[in-house]
Amino acid sequence: MVIMSGYSKEYEIFYFQVDQFGEASVITILDFLEDCAIAHSEAVGLGIESLLEQRTCWVLNRWRLEMERYPRLGEKVTIETLNTGFERFYGERVFTIRDSQGNIIGKAGSLWIYLNIDKRRPTRIPLQFADQYGVPERYEGKEPFEDLPEITDIHSEIRFHVRRSDIDTNGHVNNTRYVEWMLEGISEESLKDYRLHRLEVIYKKETPYGTDILSQGQGAKDAGLQYLHRVLDQSGERELACGRTVWTKR
Amino acid sequence: MVIMSGYSKEYEIFYFQVDQFGEASVITILDFLEDCAIAHSEAVGLGIESLLEQRTCWVLNRWRLEMERYPRLGEKVTIETLNTGFERFYGERVFTIRDSQGNIIGKAGSLWIYLNIDKRRPTRIPLQFADQYGVPERYEGKEPFEDLPEITDIHSEIRFHVRRSDIDTNGHVNNTRYVEWMLEGISEESLKDYRLHRLEVIYKKETPYGTDILSQGQGAKDAGLQYLHRVLDQSGERELACGRTVWTKR
Repeated sequence: MVIMSGYSKEYEIFYFQVDQFGEASVITILDFLEDCAIAHSEAVGLGIESLLEQRTCWVLNRWRLEMERYPRLGEKVTIETLNTGFERFYGERVFTIRDSQGNIIGKAGSLWIYLNIDKRRPTRIPLQFADQYGVPERYEGKEPFEDLPEITDIHSEIRFHVRRSDIDTNGHVNNTRYVEWMLEGISEESLKDYRLHRLEVIYKKETPYGTDILSQGQGAKDAGLQYLHRVLDQSGERELACGRTVWTKR
Repeated sequence: MVIMSGYSKEYEIFYFQVDQFGEASVITILDFLEDCAIAHSEAVGLGIESLLEQRTCWVLNRWRLEMERYPRLGEKVTIETLNTGFERFYGERVFTIRDSQGNIIGKAGSLWIYLNIDKRRPTRIPLQFADQYGVPERYEGKEPFEDLPEITDIHSEIRFHVRRSDIDTNGHVNNTRYVEWMLEGISEESLKDYRLHRLEVIYKKETPYGTDILSQGQGAKDAGLQYLHRVLDQSGERELACGRTVWTKR
């Protein structure tokens, strides 16, 4: 087991964060991870406002999440996060999710791009960030991000209108919404029998308020309980995000 | 000032709970109120599971919320709630929202219906509930719920498709979603200049997963910064919820 330093924060599972099984939804977990990353940045003096002064921000590029179990209503979880390295304009960050007994119930990895807001283009991460975040010289638990296979057969297709409540503080669709749209393609019946075990998401383009999107999925029970997902703009031409989900029996 | 007994719980404002102004959204506040009410019931032995054994549940009938200011990212608020009375199958509950200095920043009232799940009809509240919840003999701060005026002119109209993520643990649309749909009718420009000060909602019908809804609004800046809202089923014939919002300058 890798001992993390970095930053940690406790979260309680509230009523509005659980699904029909009384368990925290995967969206809630992603919300916690994002909040924890932002709180870490804030704690080391590199919060949203401070970056805004430099006209920069972090944009999420990838998520990888693996949950052994989901916490239930009223449970408390502690999330630890560690910035494991910077490379040009990429920052990598890992997370460990523990229950109140200290058992690891989930882990996650993420890749973030450091952006110049005005040019809307990646920009080099300042050298002193590594010291401020306490990036370890060598991080043993590194797991590379894989590319995802293309969808070859479309088994489900749903259209969504982007709501104002889908929009982030920066005017674009919040990253958890793409996951929500991907998961809407899974049948109600599959959800009754299976639980999301592993999730990978790659973000490709930002989506502004007021547009429509298309969520497509491929996969079936006999395909090893694995689904491929993609979110396109309404024309179906621009891929906004793609993902893969792996499910295990409840 | 009325001193409440009842139940209280602390909430921190996380990143995913703030709007574009860095303030907790009204949806977040309603989520907190609902969670606090449920936690209170849990604490006195009348939680969701315990009612389920009796084949009963609480269904929200009305909200009334008044916010002096909205808490900001990272702030902690304490919500106190008190069950102020039972009448046949109606339960009334009030809330006070305080910041970390103890200042009252908001207050709310709510009316709940006690339901027989199998018959889907209101049922008489057991006498012993009043003792268990610690309902005061006489509650001074009572504020009656008003009926809302009908919409006579439609100034905005938007359609929504109900998503799985809109659905509650009981298989119906969560009560905060209706408010979300009502607020989508307010223009982006009005939101920049005005802040929601007072909200009233009346819930009329339950909405299942997979349907479409219609959100209509009436009001303008010159109409005293007041809007009327209603949410209808897709045919436009059945009213599912209605509301009134009052806005003050930022």
